[in-house]
Amino acid sequence: MNALGTHLLLDLEDCSPALLDDVEHVRQALMSAASEAGATIVGETFHKFQPVGVTGILAIAESHMGVHTWPEYGFAAVDIFTCGEDFSPHKAAALLIDRLECANPTLKEVKRGFIQRRVASPVEVPR
Amino acid sequence: MNALGTHLLLDLEDCSPALLDDVEHVRQALMSAASEAGATIVGETFHKFQPVGVTGILAIAESHMGVHTWPEYGFAAVDIFTCGEDFSPHKAAALLIDRLECANPTLKEVKRGFIQRRVASPVEVPR
Repeated sequence: MNALGTHLLLDLEDCSPALLDDVEHVRQALMSAASEAGATIVGETFHKFQPVGVTGILAIAESHMGVHTWPEYGFAAVDIFTCGEDFSPHKAAALLIDRLECANPTLKEVKRGFIQRRVASPVEVPR
Repeated sequence: MNALGTHLLLDLEDCSPALLDDVEHVRQALMSAASEAGATIVGETFHKFQPVGVTGILAIAESHMGVHTWPEYGFAAVDIFTCGEDFSPHKAAALLIDRLECANPTLKEVKRGFIQRRVASPVEVPR
């Protein structure tokens, strides 16, 4: 497989509404899932919406992990994009499903960046 | 259409390698595309990798916009997730394609969070 990255799109239905509205819980769930799945966190941004809802995104050395929550629907949209070998996006997904107490997850996997030609002849970046 | 959100996955081939390795250019391209397309920026995280590569993600009120660059391949992987009505993800995509000088973009659109049942009966969030 010559894709540069794997992008997992997780639609998490029937999660705990209270947990989805707790920005610190969402932050800890995302940070711990990233670390336990082997990611190296290089940046983060989290936001609590009023009256309800949380957005949280981690920049990781392997790309990113993000979650957007709709507590009023018990729904969270997660995406996990990785271009690394050491990080397991499926393990991170399983950990998030558990920590957001999701009873009805669906997962879509998208391969990104097919670059057979480029792998054969990378471009020199001007310095 | 009862999806909560639209997620655009953009694979940008044949971009300017120099621009893809310039974290400040990537930041300005992402910030300006978000603003001009009607997004409200609520957070950001950017990281410059060594020897090459940039990751940048904006948390926006409408969800997020992110870019990961591989200057050595002239490639950038962009995703634009929106749950709002006022923000045009396709306009943001067109602006990024222009500002990263991409000659060969491909776009995949994924609808997220089909919640017909939930729209009819949202869950009360404990306070």
